[in-house]
Amino acid sequence: MVPTAAILLIGNELLSGKIRDQNGHFLATVLRRRGIRLIEMVTVADELADIGDALLRLLQRTPLVFTSGGVGPTHDDVTLEALARATGRTLVRNQAMEAILRDHFGATITPEALSMADVPDGTVLRAERGWPVLRLDLESPGQGLRAIPHEARIYILPGIPELCRAKIEALEGIPGELPDGGGWALEVLHTSLDESDLAASLDRVVAGFREVEIGSYPRWTADEDGRLRCVVRITFEARGDAIAQARAARDALAAALGADALITPPPA
Amino acid sequence: MVPTAAILLIGNELLSGKIRDQNGHFLATVLRRRGIRLIEMVTVADELADIGDALLRLLQRTPLVFTSGGVGPTHDDVTLEALARATGRTLVRNQAMEAILRDHFGATITPEALSMADVPDGTVLRAERGWPVLRLDLESPGQGLRAIPHEARIYILPGIPELCRAKIEALEGIPGELPDGGGWALEVLHTSLDESDLAASLDRVVAGFREVEIGSYPRWTADEDGRLRCVVRITFEARGDAIAQARAARDALAAALGADALITPPPA
Repeated sequence: MVPTAAILLIGNELLSGKIRDQNGHFLATVLRRRGIRLIEMVTVADELADIGDALLRLLQRTPLVFTSGGVGPTHDDVTLEALARATGRTLVRNQAMEAILRDHFGATITPEALSMADVPDGTVLRAERGWPVLRLDLESPGQGLRAIPHEARIYILPGIPELCRAKIEALEGIPGELPDGGGWALEVLHTSLDESDLAASLDRVVAGFREVEIGSYPRWTADEDGRLRCVVRITFEARGDAIAQARAARDALAAALGADALITPPPA
Repeated sequence: MVPTAAILLIGNELLSGKIRDQNGHFLATVLRRRGIRLIEMVTVADELADIGDALLRLLQRTPLVFTSGGVGPTHDDVTLEALARATGRTLVRNQAMEAILRDHFGATITPEALSMADVPDGTVLRAERGWPVLRLDLESPGQGLRAIPHEARIYILPGIPELCRAKIEALEGIPGELPDGGGWALEVLHTSLDESDLAASLDRVVAGFREVEIGSYPRWTADEDGRLRCVVRITFEARGDAIAQARAARDALAAALGADALITPPPA
Protein backbone atom coordinates (compact mmCIF):
# COMPACT_ATOMS: atom_id res chain seq x y z
CA MET A 1 0.00 0.00 0.00
CA VAL A 2 1.38 3.36 -1.02
CA PRO A 3 0.99 5.81 1.88
CA THR A 4 -1.08 8.89 1.15
CA ALA A 5 -1.27 12.44 2.47
CA ALA A 6 -3.16 15.69 1.96
CA ILE A 7 -2.12 19.33 2.33
CA LEU A 8 -4.33 22.06 3.79
CA LEU A 9 -3.04 25.56 3.08
CA ILE A 10 -4.62 28.29 5.17
CA GLY A 11 -4.50 31.97 4.35
CA ASN A 12 -6.48 34.79 2.75
CA GLU A 13 -3.24 35.99 1.18
CA LEU A 14 -3.07 32.84 -0.96
CA LEU A 15 -6.67 33.18 -2.14
CA SER A 16 -6.26 36.85 -2.98
CA GLY A 17 -3.17 36.06 -5.04
CA LYS A 18 -0.98 38.36 -2.94
CA ILE A 19 1.19 35.35 -2.20
CA ARG A 20 1.96 32.49 -4.56
CA ASP A 21 2.15 29.23 -2.68
CA GLN A 22 5.59 27.86 -1.92
CA ASN A 23 4.86 25.61 1.04
CA GLY A 24 2.46 23.24 -0.66
CA HIS A 25 4.73 22.84 -3.63
CA PHE A 26 7.81 22.20 -1.49
CA LEU A 27 5.99 19.65 0.65
CA ALA A 28 4.65 17.96 -2.49
CA THR A 29 8.20 17.41 -3.73
CA VAL A 30 9.23 15.96 -0.36
CA LEU A 31 6.27 13.58 -0.33
CA ARG A 32 7.01 12.46 -3.88
CA ARG A 33 10.63 11.73 -3.03
CA ARG A 34 9.54 9.59 -0.09
CA GLY A 35 7.05 7.62 -2.19
CA ILE A 36 4.01 9.16 -0.46
CA ARG A 37 1.07 9.91 -2.75
CA LEU A 38 -0.37 13.39 -2.27
CA ILE A 39 -4.08 13.00 -3.01
CA GLU A 40 -5.28 16.57 -2.60
CA MET A 41 -4.05 20.05 -1.83
CA VAL A 42 -6.58 22.64 -0.79
CA THR A 43 -6.36 26.33 0.07
CA VAL A 44 -8.96 27.91 2.34
CA ALA A 45 -9.44 31.28 4.04
CA ASP A 46 -8.57 32.16 7.64
CA GLU A 47 -12.04 31.10 8.77
CA LEU A 48 -12.87 28.61 11.50
CA ALA A 49 -15.58 26.80 9.54
CA ASP A 50 -13.63 26.63 6.29
CA ILE A 51 -10.55 25.18 7.98
CA GLY A 52 -12.52 22.69 10.06
CA ASP A 53 -14.65 21.49 7.16
CA ALA A 54 -11.61 21.01 4.96
CA LEU A 55 -9.71 19.14 7.67
CA LEU A 56 -12.51 16.68 8.38
CA ARG A 57 -13.11 16.09 4.70
CA LEU A 58 -9.42 15.39 4.04
CA LEU A 59 -9.26 13.04 7.04
CA GLN A 60 -11.96 10.94 5.37
CA ARG A 61 -9.53 10.41 2.49
CA THR A 62 -6.16 9.98 4.19
CA PRO A 63 -4.70 9.50 7.67
CA LEU A 64 -1.97 12.11 7.16
CA VAL A 65 -2.72 15.82 6.81
CA PHE A 66 -0.27 18.71 6.81
CA THR A 67 -1.59 22.19 7.50
CA SER A 68 0.34 25.38 6.81
CA GLY A 69 -0.48 28.86 8.06
CA GLY A 70 -2.58 30.61 10.64
CA VAL A 71 -0.55 29.80 13.77
CA GLY A 72 0.70 33.28 14.69
CA PRO A 73 -0.62 35.60 17.40
CA THR A 74 -2.93 37.93 15.44
CA HIS A 75 -6.68 37.96 14.78
CA ASP A 76 -6.33 36.14 11.45
CA ASP A 77 -4.47 33.21 13.02
CA VAL A 78 -7.31 30.82 13.78
CA THR A 79 -5.87 27.46 12.70
CA LEU A 80 -5.31 26.03 16.18
CA GLU A 81 -8.82 26.89 17.31
CA ALA A 82 -10.29 25.56 14.08
CA LEU A 83 -8.46 22.24 14.39
CA ALA A 84 -9.49 21.93 18.03
CA ARG A 85 -13.16 22.53 17.26
CA ALA A 86 -13.16 20.20 14.28
CA THR A 87 -11.61 17.34 16.24
CA GLY A 88 -13.64 17.87 19.41
CA ARG A 89 -10.69 18.94 21.55
CA THR A 90 -10.26 21.86 23.88
CA LEU A 91 -7.40 24.33 23.55
CA VAL A 92 -4.98 23.81 26.42
CA ARG A 93 -1.82 25.66 27.37
CA ASN A 94 1.16 23.51 26.36
CA GLN A 95 3.90 23.93 28.97
CA ALA A 96 6.82 23.16 26.68
CA MET A 97 5.53 25.57 24.07
CA GLU A 98 5.01 28.24 26.71
CA ALA A 99 8.63 27.83 27.82
CA ILE A 100 9.82 28.26 24.23
CA LEU A 101 7.74 31.41 23.83
CA ARG A 102 8.88 32.91 27.17
CA ASP A 103 12.47 32.20 26.23
CA HIS A 104 11.98 33.93 22.88
CA PHE A 105 9.95 36.96 23.96
CA GLY A 106 11.37 37.51 27.46
CA ALA A 107 9.67 39.22 30.38
CA THR A 108 7.57 41.53 28.23
CA ILE A 109 5.70 38.72 26.54
CA THR A 110 2.12 39.68 25.64
CA PRO A 111 -1.03 37.60 26.12
CA GLU A 112 -1.29 37.35 22.34
CA ALA A 113 2.18 35.83 22.08
CA LEU A 114 1.40 33.40 24.89
CA SER A 115 -1.76 32.35 23.09
CA MET A 116 0.43 30.56 20.58
CA ALA A 117 0.98 27.96 23.33
CA ASP A 118 -2.76 27.21 23.44
CA VAL A 119 -2.98 24.09 21.31
CA PRO A 120 -5.52 21.30 20.79
CA ASP A 121 -5.44 18.91 23.74
CA GLY A 122 -3.01 16.08 23.04
CA THR A 123 -0.79 18.02 20.67
CA VAL A 124 2.87 17.03 20.88
CA LEU A 125 5.90 19.04 19.84
CA ARG A 126 8.27 17.69 17.21
CA ALA A 127 11.40 19.11 15.60
CA GLU A 128 11.86 21.29 18.65
CA ARG A 129 15.02 23.17 17.74
CA GLY A 130 13.78 26.70 17.21
CA TRP A 131 10.07 26.91 16.53
CA PRO A 132 8.55 23.45 17.03
CA VAL A 133 6.21 21.58 14.73
CA LEU A 134 2.88 20.79 16.36
CA ARG A 135 1.59 17.28 15.81
CA LEU A 136 -1.93 16.22 16.67
CA ASP A 137 -2.66 12.48 16.72
CA LEU A 138 -6.23 11.25 16.44
CA GLU A 139 -7.11 7.75 17.56
CA SER A 140 -9.54 5.53 15.71
CA PRO A 141 -12.53 5.63 15.69
CA GLY A 142 -12.22 9.31 15.10
CA GLN A 143 -13.38 12.06 17.32
CA GLY A 144 -14.93 15.27 16.15
CA LEU A 145 -17.97 16.34 14.25
CA ARG A 146 -17.63 13.51 11.78
CA ALA A 147 -16.15 10.09 12.50
CA ILE A 148 -12.72 9.60 10.99
CA PRO A 149 -12.36 6.07 9.62
CA HIS A 150 -8.78 5.49 10.77
CA GLU A 151 -6.08 6.75 13.08
CA ALA A 152 -4.84 10.04 11.81
CA ARG A 153 -1.99 12.45 12.26
CA ILE A 154 -2.03 16.19 11.62
CA TYR A 155 1.18 18.18 11.28
CA ILE A 156 0.59 21.87 11.95
CA LEU A 157 3.19 23.87 10.05
CA PRO A 158 3.82 27.62 9.97
CA GLY A 159 2.87 29.70 6.94
CA ILE A 160 6.11 31.64 6.64
CA PRO A 161 7.89 29.86 3.79
CA GLU A 162 11.40 29.86 5.27
CA LEU A 163 10.11 28.44 8.55
CA CYS A 164 7.79 25.97 6.90
CA ARG A 165 10.54 24.56 4.74
CA ALA A 166 12.97 24.30 7.66
CA LYS A 167 10.37 22.47 9.71
CA ILE A 168 9.58 19.97 6.96
CA GLU A 169 13.28 19.25 6.61
CA ALA A 170 13.55 18.86 10.37
CA LEU A 171 10.70 16.33 10.37
CA GLU A 172 12.49 14.40 7.64
CA GLY A 173 15.54 14.28 9.89
CA ILE A 174 13.68 12.44 12.66
CA PRO A 175 13.95 8.68 11.98
CA GLY A 176 10.53 7.12 11.52
CA GLU A 177 8.63 10.39 11.88
CA LEU A 178 7.23 10.52 8.36
CA PRO A 179 5.99 7.48 6.43
CA ASP A 180 8.35 5.80 4.02
CA GLY A 181 6.71 4.70 0.80
CA GLY A 182 9.79 2.81 -0.35
CA GLY A 183 11.02 5.60 -2.56
CA TRP A 184 10.02 6.74 -5.97
CA ALA A 185 11.26 6.66 -9.54
CA LEU A 186 10.74 9.07 -12.42
CA GLU A 187 11.57 8.36 -16.05
CA VAL A 188 11.01 10.91 -18.78
CA LEU A 189 10.65 10.82 -22.56
CA HIS A 190 10.30 13.76 -24.96
CA THR A 191 8.64 13.50 -28.33
CA SER A 192 7.93 15.79 -31.26
CA LEU A 193 4.66 13.96 -31.97
CA ASP A 194 1.48 15.81 -31.21
CA GLU A 195 -0.36 14.46 -28.18
CA SER A 196 -3.22 13.30 -30.35
CA ASP A 197 -0.84 11.30 -32.57
CA LEU A 198 0.77 9.48 -29.69
CA ALA A 199 -2.40 8.89 -27.68
CA ALA A 200 -3.12 5.42 -29.05
CA SER A 201 0.41 4.13 -28.31
CA LEU A 202 0.30 5.79 -24.94
CA ASP A 203 -3.01 4.14 -24.09
CA ARG A 204 -1.48 0.71 -24.73
CA VAL A 205 1.47 1.41 -22.43
CA VAL A 206 -0.86 2.79 -19.77
CA ALA A 207 -2.90 -0.42 -19.99
CA GLY A 208 0.22 -2.59 -19.81
CA PHE A 209 1.79 -0.88 -16.80
CA ARG A 210 -0.98 -0.33 -14.30
CA GLU A 211 1.38 0.41 -11.43
CA VAL A 212 3.08 3.23 -13.30
CA GLU A 213 1.55 6.69 -13.26
CA ILE A 214 2.02 8.14 -16.72
CA GLY A 215 1.58 11.82 -17.52
CA SER A 216 1.70 13.69 -20.80
CA TYR A 217 2.56 17.41 -20.84
CA PRO A 218 2.71 19.41 -24.07
CA ARG A 219 4.72 22.58 -24.24
CA TRP A 220 4.85 25.02 -27.10
CA THR A 221 8.09 26.68 -28.02
CA ALA A 222 8.73 29.06 -30.89
CA ASP A 223 11.27 27.96 -33.51
CA GLU A 224 13.56 30.33 -35.46
CA ASP A 225 10.71 31.43 -37.75
CA GLY A 226 8.49 32.21 -34.79
CA ARG A 227 6.34 29.20 -35.64
CA LEU A 228 5.02 27.35 -32.61
CA ARG A 229 6.39 23.87 -32.23
CA CYS A 230 4.99 21.43 -29.73
CA VAL A 231 7.16 19.20 -27.59
CA VAL A 232 5.45 16.64 -25.39
CA ARG A 233 7.08 15.55 -22.16
CA ILE A 234 5.91 12.17 -20.96
CA THR A 235 6.63 11.14 -17.40
CA PHE A 236 6.59 7.65 -15.89
CA GLU A 237 6.41 7.44 -12.12
CA ALA A 238 6.36 4.47 -9.80
CA ARG A 239 6.61 3.97 -6.06
CA GLY A 240 7.90 1.27 -3.73
CA ASP A 241 7.94 -2.26 -5.17
CA ALA A 242 7.00 -1.04 -8.64
CA ILE A 243 9.98 1.28 -9.10
CA ALA A 244 11.58 -0.81 -11.85
CA GLN A 245 8.36 -0.64 -13.86
CA ALA A 246 8.84 3.07 -14.57
CA ARG A 247 11.86 2.39 -16.77
CA ALA A 248 10.18 -0.56 -18.46
CA ALA A 249 7.12 1.54 -19.32
CA ARG A 250 9.29 4.30 -20.72
CA ASP A 251 11.22 1.84 -22.88
CA ALA A 252 7.98 0.29 -24.13
CA LEU A 253 6.63 3.64 -25.28
CA ALA A 254 9.95 4.64 -26.84
CA ALA A 255 9.92 1.42 -28.86
CA ALA A 256 6.31 1.96 -29.93
CA LEU A 257 6.90 5.54 -31.10
CA GLY A 258 10.17 4.80 -32.89
CA ALA A 259 13.48 6.61 -32.64
CA ASP A 260 12.51 9.33 -35.13
CA ALA A 261 9.73 10.55 -32.86
CA LEU A 262 11.97 10.92 -29.82
CA ILE A 263 13.88 14.05 -28.89
CA THR A 264 17.28 13.21 -27.43
CA PRO A 265 18.82 14.85 -25.60
CA PRO A 266 15.71 16.41 -24.08
CA PRO A 267 15.00 20.07 -24.90
CA ALA A 268 16.18 22.76 -22.50
CA MET B 1 -23.01 41.18 -2.21
CA VAL B 2 -19.42 40.48 -3.18
CA PRO B 3 -19.34 37.89 -5.97
CA THR B 4 -17.44 34.69 -5.16
CA ALA B 5 -15.60 32.04 -7.12
CA ALA B 6 -13.63 28.83 -6.66
CA ILE B 7 -10.74 27.31 -8.59
CA LEU B 8 -10.34 23.60 -9.31
CA LEU B 9 -6.86 22.67 -10.50
CA ILE B 10 -6.58 19.24 -12.08
CA GLY B 11 -3.35 17.37 -12.58
CA ASN B 12 -1.14 14.68 -11.08
CA GLU B 13 1.87 16.83 -11.97
CA LEU B 14 0.76 19.47 -9.46
CA LEU B 15 0.28 16.94 -6.66
CA SER B 16 3.63 15.29 -7.32
CA GLY B 17 5.35 18.66 -7.17
CA LYS B 18 6.76 18.29 -10.68
CA ILE B 19 4.94 21.49 -11.57
CA ARG B 20 4.38 24.46 -9.30
CA ASP B 21 1.00 26.01 -9.92
CA GLN B 22 0.88 29.18 -11.98
CA ASN B 23 -2.69 29.12 -13.25
CA GLY B 24 -4.44 29.25 -9.90
CA HIS B 25 -2.24 32.05 -8.71
CA PHE B 26 -2.70 34.09 -11.86
CA LEU B 27 -6.46 33.65 -11.80
CA ALA B 28 -6.52 34.59 -8.10
CA THR B 29 -4.90 37.92 -8.90
CA VAL B 30 -7.42 38.57 -11.70
CA LEU B 31 -10.34 37.79 -9.41
CA ARG B 32 -8.95 40.05 -6.70
CA ARG B 33 -8.56 42.93 -9.13
CA ARG B 34 -12.18 42.52 -10.21
CA GLY B 35 -13.43 42.48 -6.62
CA ILE B 36 -14.41 38.79 -6.76
CA ARG B 37 -13.75 36.84 -3.57
CA LEU B 38 -11.96 33.53 -4.18
CA ILE B 39 -13.27 31.23 -1.46
CA GLU B 40 -11.30 28.07 -2.17
CA MET B 41 -8.66 26.68 -4.48
CA VAL B 42 -8.27 22.93 -4.67
CA THR B 43 -5.92 20.63 -6.55
CA VAL B 44 -6.97 17.08 -7.37
CA ALA B 45 -5.58 14.20 -9.42
CA ASP B 46 -6.56 13.26 -12.98
CA GLU B 47 -9.30 10.99 -11.67
CA LEU B 48 -12.98 11.06 -12.61
CA ALA B 49 -14.28 10.70 -9.07
CA ASP B 50 -11.88 13.20 -7.54
CA ILE B 51 -12.71 15.86 -10.11
CA GLY B 52 -16.45 15.29 -9.93
CA ASP B 53 -16.57 15.28 -6.13
CA ALA B 54 -14.56 18.47 -5.93
CA LEU B 55 -16.70 20.21 -8.54
CA LEU B 56 -20.00 19.39 -6.86
CA ARG B 57 -18.65 20.39 -3.47
CA LEU B 58 -17.40 23.74 -4.77
CA LEU B 59 -20.73 24.39 -6.52
CA GLN B 60 -22.42 24.14 -3.12
CA ARG B 61 -20.31 27.10 -2.03
CA THR B 62 -20.26 29.37 -5.08
CA PRO B 63 -21.96 29.72 -8.48
CA LEU B 64 -18.69 30.32 -10.33
CA VAL B 65 -16.02 27.65 -10.73
CA PHE B 66 -12.94 27.74 -12.92
CA THR B 67 -11.23 24.47 -13.77
CA SER B 68 -7.74 24.19 -15.22
CA GLY B 69 -6.14 21.12 -16.76
CA GLY B 70 -7.07 17.74 -18.17
CA VAL B 71 -8.60 18.83 -21.48
CA GLY B 72 -6.04 17.39 -23.91
CA PRO B 73 -6.32 14.21 -25.99
CA THR B 74 -4.41 11.68 -23.88
CA HIS B 75 -5.45 9.06 -21.30
CA ASP B 76 -4.85 11.41 -18.37
CA ASP B 77 -7.17 14.09 -19.76
CA VAL B 78 -10.44 13.20 -18.09
CA THR B 79 -11.80 16.58 -17.04
CA LEU B 80 -14.57 16.85 -19.65
CA GLU B 81 -15.87 13.38 -18.88
CA ALA B 82 -15.66 14.04 -15.14
CA LEU B 83 -17.60 17.30 -15.42
CA ALA B 84 -20.22 15.64 -17.62
CA ARG B 85 -20.75 12.78 -15.17
CA ALA B 86 -20.87 15.06 -12.15
CA THR B 87 -23.46 17.36 -13.70
CA GLY B 88 -25.57 14.58 -15.22
CA ARG B 89 -24.82 15.51 -18.82
CA THR B 90 -23.76 13.40 -21.75
CA LEU B 91 -20.66 14.11 -23.78
CA VAL B 92 -21.69 15.40 -27.20
CA ARG B 93 -19.63 16.36 -30.21
CA ASN B 94 -19.52 20.16 -30.44
CA GLN B 95 -19.60 21.17 -34.11
CA ALA B 96 -17.79 24.48 -33.68
CA MET B 97 -15.07 22.84 -31.64
CA GLU B 98 -14.73 20.07 -34.22
CA ALA B 99 -14.25 22.68 -36.95
CA ILE B 100 -11.51 24.36 -34.92
CA LEU B 101 -9.74 21.04 -34.39
CA ARG B 102 -10.02 20.02 -38.06
CA ASP B 103 -8.64 23.38 -39.08
CA HIS B 104 -5.71 22.94 -36.69
CA PHE B 105 -4.84 19.30 -37.34
CA GLY B 106 -5.80 19.00 -41.02
CA ALA B 107 -6.79 15.89 -42.88
CA THR B 108 -4.71 13.53 -40.74
CA ILE B 109 -6.59 14.33 -37.55
CA THR B 110 -6.76 11.36 -35.18
CA PRO B 111 -9.79 10.14 -33.21
CA GLU B 112 -8.00 11.21 -30.02
CA ALA B 113 -7.64 14.77 -31.28
CA LEU B 114 -11.29 14.84 -32.34
CA SER B 115 -12.30 13.64 -28.88
CA MET B 116 -11.40 17.10 -27.60
CA ALA B 117 -14.62 18.24 -29.28
CA ASP B 118 -16.68 15.89 -27.09
CA VAL B 119 -17.91 18.22 -24.37
CA PRO B 120 -20.68 18.16 -21.75
CA ASP B 121 -24.05 18.79 -23.40
CA GLY B 122 -24.83 22.50 -23.35
CA THR B 123 -21.23 23.68 -23.28
CA VAL B 124 -20.69 26.93 -25.17
CA LEU B 125 -17.46 28.29 -26.61
CA ARG B 126 -16.12 31.63 -25.44
CA ALA B 127 -12.98 33.61 -26.31
CA GLU B 128 -12.84 31.73 -29.61
CA ARG B 129 -9.73 33.24 -31.16
CA GLY B 130 -7.29 30.34 -31.10
CA TRP B 131 -8.21 27.66 -28.62
CA PRO B 132 -11.63 28.47 -27.15
CA VAL B 133 -12.66 28.51 -23.52
CA LEU B 134 -15.41 26.03 -22.75
CA ARG B 135 -18.21 27.33 -20.56
CA LEU B 136 -20.82 25.09 -19.01
CA ASP B 137 -23.90 26.78 -17.55
CA LEU B 138 -26.04 24.96 -15.01
CA GLU B 139 -29.58 26.10 -14.41
CA SER B 140 -31.18 26.19 -10.99
CA PRO B 141 -32.26 23.93 -9.39
CA GLY B 142 -29.05 22.10 -10.11
CA GLN B 143 -28.65 18.93 -12.03
CA GLY B 144 -26.24 16.16 -11.22
CA LEU B 145 -25.57 13.83 -8.37
CA ARG B 146 -26.19 16.54 -5.78
CA ALA B 147 -28.55 19.45 -6.17
CA ILE B 148 -26.78 22.74 -6.73
CA PRO B 149 -28.52 25.52 -4.82
CA HIS B 150 -28.21 28.20 -7.50
CA GLU B 151 -27.48 28.78 -11.15
CA ALA B 152 -23.86 28.08 -11.80
CA ARG B 153 -21.23 28.61 -14.42
CA ILE B 154 -18.12 26.53 -14.99
CA TYR B 155 -15.22 27.82 -17.06
CA ILE B 156 -13.07 24.97 -18.35
CA LEU B 157 -9.54 26.26 -18.86
CA PRO B 158 -6.47 24.49 -20.26
CA GLY B 159 -3.62 23.44 -17.98
CA ILE B 160 -0.76 24.76 -20.09
CA PRO B 161 0.14 28.00 -18.31
CA GLU B 162 0.67 30.17 -21.39
CA LEU B 163 -2.67 29.10 -22.85
CA CYS B 164 -4.49 29.35 -19.55
CA ARG B 165 -3.30 32.87 -18.95
CA ALA B 166 -4.16 33.97 -22.48
CA LYS B 167 -7.64 32.53 -22.13
CA ILE B 168 -8.29 34.27 -18.81
CA GLU B 169 -7.22 37.55 -20.36
CA ALA B 170 -9.47 36.88 -23.33
CA LEU B 171 -12.44 36.28 -21.02
CA GLU B 172 -11.70 39.56 -19.29
CA GLY B 173 -11.85 41.24 -22.69
CA ILE B 174 -15.45 40.16 -23.29
CA PRO B 175 -17.76 42.82 -21.81
CA GLY B 176 -19.98 41.36 -19.11
CA GLU B 177 -18.49 37.87 -19.33
CA LEU B 178 -16.98 37.77 -15.83
CA PRO B 179 -18.68 39.24 -12.74
CA ASP B 180 -17.71 42.72 -11.65
CA GLY B 181 -17.38 43.11 -7.92
CA GLY B 182 -16.96 46.87 -8.14
CA GLY B 183 -13.20 46.78 -7.89
CA TRP B 184 -10.89 46.35 -5.01
CA ALA B 185 -8.48 48.37 -2.89
CA LEU B 186 -5.32 47.38 -1.06
CA GLU B 187 -3.53 49.48 1.54
CA VAL B 188 -0.35 48.35 3.22
CA LEU B 189 1.54 49.25 6.39
CA HIS B 190 4.90 47.93 7.60
CA THR B 191 5.92 47.84 11.23
CA SER B 192 8.94 46.80 13.23
CA LEU B 193 6.73 45.66 16.10
CA ASP B 194 6.44 41.96 16.73
CA GLU B 195 3.08 40.52 15.75
CA SER B 196 2.30 39.73 19.36
CA ASP B 197 2.96 43.35 20.37
CA LEU B 198 0.65 44.79 17.78
CA ALA B 199 -2.11 42.19 18.13
CA ALA B 200 -4.19 44.17 20.63
CA SER B 201 -4.19 47.35 18.51
CA LEU B 202 -4.86 45.28 15.43
CA ASP B 203 -7.83 43.59 17.07
CA ARG B 204 -9.43 46.97 17.74
CA VAL B 205 -9.04 48.04 14.13
CA VAL B 206 -10.38 44.72 12.91
CA ALA B 207 -13.43 45.21 15.16
CA GLY B 208 -13.91 48.77 13.93
CA PHE B 209 -13.71 48.02 10.21
CA ARG B 210 -15.75 44.91 9.62
CA GLU B 211 -15.86 45.36 5.86
CA VAL B 212 -12.10 45.48 5.56
CA GLU B 213 -10.14 42.24 5.34
CA ILE B 214 -6.98 42.73 7.36
CA GLY B 215 -3.99 40.41 7.16
CA SER B 216 -0.74 40.34 9.09
CA TYR B 217 2.37 38.77 7.54
CA PRO B 218 5.69 38.62 9.39
CA ARG B 219 8.90 38.24 7.48
CA TRP B 220 12.33 37.76 8.92
CA THR B 221 15.29 39.47 7.35
CA ALA B 222 18.88 39.40 8.51
CA ASP B 223 20.44 42.72 9.51
CA GLU B 224 24.13 43.63 9.07
CA ASP B 225 25.16 41.51 12.07
CA GLY B 226 23.30 38.50 10.74
CA ARG B 227 20.72 38.91 13.47
CA LEU B 228 17.18 38.09 12.39
CA ARG B 229 14.90 41.09 12.41
CA CYS B 230 11.18 40.77 11.98
CA VAL B 231 9.17 43.09 9.76
CA VAL B 232 5.41 42.71 9.75
CA ARG B 233 3.45 43.63 6.66
CA ILE B 234 -0.18 44.44 7.35
CA THR B 235 -2.62 44.56 4.47
CA PHE B 236 -6.06 46.18 4.35
CA GLU B 237 -8.36 45.06 1.55
CA ALA B 238 -11.84 46.13 0.64
CA ARG B 239 -14.18 45.53 -2.26
CA GLY B 240 -16.98 47.40 -3.98
CA ASP B 241 -18.77 49.99 -1.86
CA ALA B 242 -16.33 49.59 1.02
CA ILE B 243 -13.21 50.53 -0.94
CA ALA B 244 -12.63 53.80 0.95
CA GLN B 245 -12.64 51.89 4.25
CA ALA B 246 -9.31 50.23 3.45
CA ARG B 247 -7.44 53.51 3.70
CA ALA B 248 -9.33 54.54 6.83
CA ALA B 249 -8.48 51.26 8.55
CA ARG B 250 -4.83 51.62 7.65
CA ASP B 251 -4.73 55.15 8.99
CA ALA B 252 -6.42 54.07 12.21
CA LEU B 253 -3.82 51.39 12.86
CA ALA B 254 -0.96 53.71 11.98
CA ALA B 255 -2.25 56.22 14.53
CA ALA B 256 -2.65 53.52 17.18
CA LEU B 257 0.88 52.14 16.71
CA GLY B 258 2.58 55.54 16.52
CA ALA B 259 5.04 56.82 13.98
CA ASP B 260 8.06 55.20 15.65
CA ALA B 261 6.65 51.75 15.03
CA LEU B 262 6.12 52.29 11.32
CA ILE B 263 8.67 51.55 8.64
CA THR B 264 8.54 54.15 5.88
CA PRO B 265 9.32 53.79 3.11
CA PRO B 266 8.45 50.08 3.15
CA PRO B 267 11.35 47.60 3.10
CA ALA B 268 12.45 46.17 -0.23
